[in-house]
Amino acid sequence: MIKIKEQSTLPPSNWDSKTGKLETEKLKKEIADFQNILMAGAEKSLLIILQGMDASGKDSTVKNVLSAMNPMGMRAFSFKKPSEEEMSHDFLWRIHKVTPPKGMVHIFNRSQYEDVLIQRVHRWIDEDTAQKRLEAINNFEKLLSDNGTVIVKCFMNISFDEQLKRLDARTKNHEKYWKHNQNDYEERKHWPAYMEAYEDALNHCCAIPWNVIPCDDKRYKEYCVAKIVRDTLADMKLTFPPLRH
Amino acid sequence: MIKIKEQSTLPPSNWDSKTGKLETEKLKKEIADFQNILMAGAEKSLLIILQGMDASGKDSTVKNVLSAMNPMGMRAFSFKKPSEEEMSHDFLWRIHKVTPPKGMVHIFNRSQYEDVLIQRVHRWIDEDTAQKRLEAINNFEKLLSDNGTVIVKCFMNISFDEQLKRLDARTKNHEKYWKHNQNDYEERKHWPAYMEAYEDALNHCCAIPWNVIPCDDKRYKEYCVAKIVRDTLADMKLTFPPLRH
Repeated sequence: MIKIKEQSTLPPSNWDSKTGKLETEKLKKEIADFQNILMAGAEKSLLIILQGMDASGKDSTVKNVLSAMNPMGMRAFSFKKPSEEEMSHDFLWRIHKVTPPKGMVHIFNRSQYEDVLIQRVHRWIDEDTAQKRLEAINNFEKLLSDNGTVIVKCFMNISFDEQLKRLDARTKNHEKYWKHNQNDYEERKHWPAYMEAYEDALNHCCAIPWNVIPCDDKRYKEYCVAKIVRDTLADMKLTFPPLRH
Repeated sequence: MIKIKEQSTLPPSNWDSKTGKLETEKLKKEIADFQNILMAGAEKSLLIILQGMDASGKDSTVKNVLSAMNPMGMRAFSFKKPSEEEMSHDFLWRIHKVTPPKGMVHIFNRSQYEDVLIQRVHRWIDEDTAQKRLEAINNFEKLLSDNGTVIVKCFMNISFDEQLKRLDARTKNHEKYWKHNQNDYEERKHWPAYMEAYEDALNHCCAIPWNVIPCDDKRYKEYCVAKIVRDTLADMKLTFPPLRH
């Protein structure tokens, strides 16, 4: 049972940013090597889910860590407000279309979990629908893993105060203006309801376990994701295929 | 008028691999910076086409150069043998589906040009169809550029002898076995017909000009593509958008 309040958003006290960054670079090289074998073998696939509040560092995780992978074998997807066509289907329709084929790594920057978070917080769906969706997500993730897709789920855990700092920073640096969205401040007002919805998702959908990533320190967050992805790829026991004639 | 026989597959005599590699790394940093502004502005898009014979170095160009870009704003596509559904449409149908939306960079590892190359060489299409396709490609590329997509076309120019070396290398290194395909040796027998078809494509579809990349030296090839992509992005005069309230 994960209680978000008990999960730290900070690195451990012995975290050293400088040596940590070097360690992350080392892990990135290993990730690239493993991914090359994943592509070569084309027997399994990897799905990395980054789910977290605004400004928790999902984008920068892709940019600074997961970019280590060869673009021929990796794609990142973000899920914005659904289109009219997407809305006319079940909530997993648009997600299923972009699950990774064998040999590929796909990254979900936000994911199917949005539909049991923002929609629940704003009561766009009732409790019964929310419960059915949580169950549907479990079944969906089982379907994928039964077919050889390894799923890594990261909850990007940022504190309420650090989020505000980052949102404000977007209004003060012209290179970050494009990330500013006034609505993010509105969503912030629902923080406790979000945490409740997250906690429910984390605990209900745990057949494939969640990694709670402390995100207040960017370098530590990057190290954590790199370590998890590297270890997951190592556990897949990937091997180069034999010569085909 | 491009004559492939007159185009070098080798670097110039004053090419220095060591300083060249450093220059490529510098260009990659600039590419990443420009791409960030392209994403932020989301007003234009970039399509990079890598077209060339087997083992000409398309994959490694993506892996070693274009990987500099943030995966949130870049995707690479390869076009293999068309599926039954794809075959039941015109040849541009599957291509059009994956053209870059505003703010994105898409890389085509092979492209619409396959349909005026392999198909022509093997006479799967008649001359009339080939001419219609060349014209259709021109119209298609005009459509895209009229809509704000900048297109960079690279013909990856490798020599007949260097290709053989690389194909053979794939059978001798267990990390490269997966790239080996006996059929590549068969296709090689049609080299002159391929060069003729390439020459026709390069000259007929030149409203958006081709870059002929000398590919026998991998480091030089990477430098050339990095330089062209960097210069293209610089010419786009990208700017960060203002703050939206």
